Amino acid sequence: MNDVLVVGAGLAGLTAAEALVAAGATVTVLEARPRVGGRTELMDFEGAPFDLGAQWIGPTQHRMNALAKRFGMASFKTFHEGERRMWMGGKMRRWKGRIPNLSPVELVEMQLSVWKLDRLADKVPVEAPWTMDDALALDHRSLASWRDAQLHTRRARDLFDISVRTVLGVEPAEVSALWFLFYMRSGENYLSHTEIDGGSQESRLVDGAGAFAQRLAQGLDGHIVLDAPVRAIAQTDDGVVVSTDRGEHRARYVALCVPPSLLPLVRFDPAPEPARARLWGRMPMGATVKVTAVYERAFWREQGVAGELVSDEGPVSYVVDSSSHDGKVASLLCFVVGRHARTWSMTPKAERLDQVRAQLGKWFGAPGGKPRAMVEKDWAEDPWTGGCPVCNPVPTTLSVEGSFLRKPMGRVHFAGTETATAWAGYMEGAVQSGERAAAEIQARLRARA
Amino acid sequence: MNDVLVVGAGLAGLTAAEALVAAGATVTVLEARPRVGGRTELMDFEGAPFDLGAQWIGPTQHRMNALAKRFGMASFKTFHEGERRMWMGGKMRRWKGRIPNLSPVELVEMQLSVWKLDRLADKVPVEAPWTMDDALALDHRSLASWRDAQLHTRRARDLFDISVRTVLGVEPAEVSALWFLFYMRSGENYLSHTEIDGGSQESRLVDGAGAFAQRLAQGLDGHIVLDAPVRAIAQTDDGVVVSTDRGEHRARYVALCVPPSLLPLVRFDPAPEPARARLWGRMPMGATVKVTAVYERAFWREQGVAGELVSDEGPVSYVVDSSSHDGKVASLLCFVVGRHARTWSMTPKAERLDQVRAQLGKWFGAPGGKPRAMVEKDWAEDPWTGGCPVCNPVPTTLSVEGSFLRKPMGRVHFAGTETATAWAGYMEGAVQSGERAAAEIQARLRARA
Repeated sequence: MNDVLVVGAGLAGLTAAEALVAAGATVTVLEARPRVGGRTELMDFEGAPFDLGAQWIGPTQHRMNALAKRFGMASFKTFHEGERRMWMGGKMRRWKGRIPNLSPVELVEMQLSVWKLDRLADKVPVEAPWTMDDALALDHRSLASWRDAQLHTRRARDLFDISVRTVLGVEPAEVSALWFLFYMRSGENYLSHTEIDGGSQESRLVDGAGAFAQRLAQGLDGHIVLDAPVRAIAQTDDGVVVSTDRGEHRARYVALCVPPSLLPLVRFDPAPEPARARLWGRMPMGATVKVTAVYERAFWREQGVAGELVSDEGPVSYVVDSSSHDGKVASLLCFVVGRHARTWSMTPKAERLDQVRAQLGKWFGAPGGKPRAMVEKDWAEDPWTGGCPVCNPVPTTLSVEGSFLRKPMGRVHFAGTETATAWAGYMEGAVQSGERAAAEIQARLRARA
Repeated sequence: MNDVLVVGAGLAGLTAAEALVAAGATVTVLEARPRVGGRTELMDFEGAPFDLGAQWIGPTQHRMNALAKRFGMASFKTFHEGERRMWMGGKMRRWKGRIPNLSPVELVEMQLSVWKLDRLADKVPVEAPWTMDDALALDHRSLASWRDAQLHTRRARDLFDISVRTVLGVEPAEVSALWFLFYMRSGENYLSHTEIDGGSQESRLVDGAGAFAQRLAQGLDGHIVLDAPVRAIAQTDDGVVVSTDRGEHRARYVALCVPPSLLPLVRFDPAPEPARARLWGRMPMGATVKVTAVYERAFWREQGVAGELVSDEGPVSYVVDSSSHDGKVASLLCFVVGRHARTWSMTPKAERLDQVRAQLGKWFGAPGGKPRAMVEKDWAEDPWTGGCPVCNPVPTTLSVEGSFLRKPMGRVHFAGTETATAWAGYMEGAVQSGERAAAEIQARLRARA
């Protein structure tokens, strides 16, 4: 019998397993997929590492920066020098520097609303947003309704929507103001989520962010069982029996390091409390498709263009230069997010890629429309996540059932980026949650010893 | 090999099975629970039938009225003669007849908003709400936001919220205006859902509505396998293999007659399309608890009081006389709904029943606070529904993924009250959906023969 079974070999699970092994516990990691990494995934494109999932780290994501240092993983700044672009209302706006090419009214309105948002977000207790003053009212208000009260110009609203789609994979109508405020605060503030310089998109890894999980897994050699989806978890007075497609495993404790939206698929004995089951059924995964257009050369750079663009028109809402660190494999990464991502799989593959090429051609000139290759990853097609980047509770959920996010269920503890209080939804949050769950279980193992 | 496997022995499944058997098909019904009936359930209380689930039928629910006639199930009118009551803002309002004791401003505002709602609902094509003009905008707007634009007095808003909670088991913030409009229209209009006279609460069955499923099941003797939760469904070119806790079953076609929120628990091979999987993950079940307070006598009737009451204060939002047809077992049925139902299971049983008794005492005088028995049914504790009365799509879902509600998946067809176009969410809708799914499958069986 193991001390601990860790379910899920994403960054949360691998972090938890490493900490527990380091503390002397016997640990087995059970992973449903044939690979580690969860919502990070590395693909080799002609020798260049492509991140099909999470790819950036920001300066205040201290755990990820420390991990990069520890593994000797070199980072480099996300390229966005030169002219930036915005496709709004069928017209292109261009600018350089930090201040977008918008009317003074639009700019003032956006600035004021960001201040207001950040002031409100500052009040969110990240450990327990449901205890905040007005938590109930803010959780009964959709983010769309909050937006409409703050922003009155069409452009400002559209830009806000694009940022919500891109950061959370949802439409503002799908989430509550409370969840959004918590999410912003769990990073730092609104700009920390949306900016490249100083924000969560600041840096990339030369080897790809997918290498984090691979390095962690190397240190856990022999502890990880792949292709072992967990079907049932039964608890007794002495321990836990976890049934997988690769047999039964026993342990004293379990760390469940998977997205909450997948937990209804596991048969628990005893059954979860009604409120906990409801939480799991009310946190659908966001919708994100990454389409990478690969070019012979980074032609935009040669023209003094950043390769960064936001669009109010689908399918692509956000484009960013995603070339390899040395620029040898030149690419523009296109984000199809929110409702555009949800119709993506309903459009035939050739047609949807044509749509992206047409957008790139319109936005970056003829060469933009002729990538030499396109790589698409629709996370909704991966049944072991069902989307990306994060599970978002539907309105009214965080205030009522939120306290079950991290509350252990007997011998079962919970991790995963959704349970984080720092950078929830990011790799940083996954690692933080894995550390916390490991510490919870270690304390119980020590108390027992 | 069967012609058809029906999954779920609620009213949808039993109706489908009966129609298919009548058409000469070989049919087996697989039911997860040890009983038939789904969201209807009969309990014997000292010889009186108690409906723990659905209990009323309305005059335009033609299928249910026909079924009652066919089975010789006598009906009787819901008792609500005499003084009606409203507990709002900590005060009691009393009135007789149809017009509530509200200020002229509040009454006019409510009447206008109901007209407006019904005019809008009239435009919803119940077969495909997602094709409606403004479908996208209406689905991106929460019902709470729609309410705030229509209703400006506190009382009118509170009364609207109570009706939404009671009819759908949700808070207005949880659903979109589009879903609510569809739901209203699938009945007839707003009042058809909320009224006793002429509405969906008009009549009860002497033997209890739970008897419908029992009678249908009697006619399917030998066809029903209980305690057989379906774990996996695999499709081949020739047919379908359904794996249950009571063995494998094979058939040409499957009718899946269970709530959409439970479908993620089934392992499908091939996997559902991403959009379909997303639909299933975005329709959480509403929250409804029924608490029946049983008294020695219907003391309220003796005082000329209807026993009907709405309250803006939880846990109980709605009370209605639910005595047996002969009045011998006198009871007041208390609905704990929406967010009050979601915190119900987090409150210790003794405490929550005390809360209900305190409300009943405050509202109906000392005898109200002293029921001789209380029967509670929290549908969230039943893992084979997870709530009641209906799965409600979260905002933005109906417009994007709605078309997958009834769309067959290879050899698998879908029924259940959520897939109905008439009285979705009610017994009537369940039966309509069962008839439709049976007709779809019959057509394929005939084409094959």
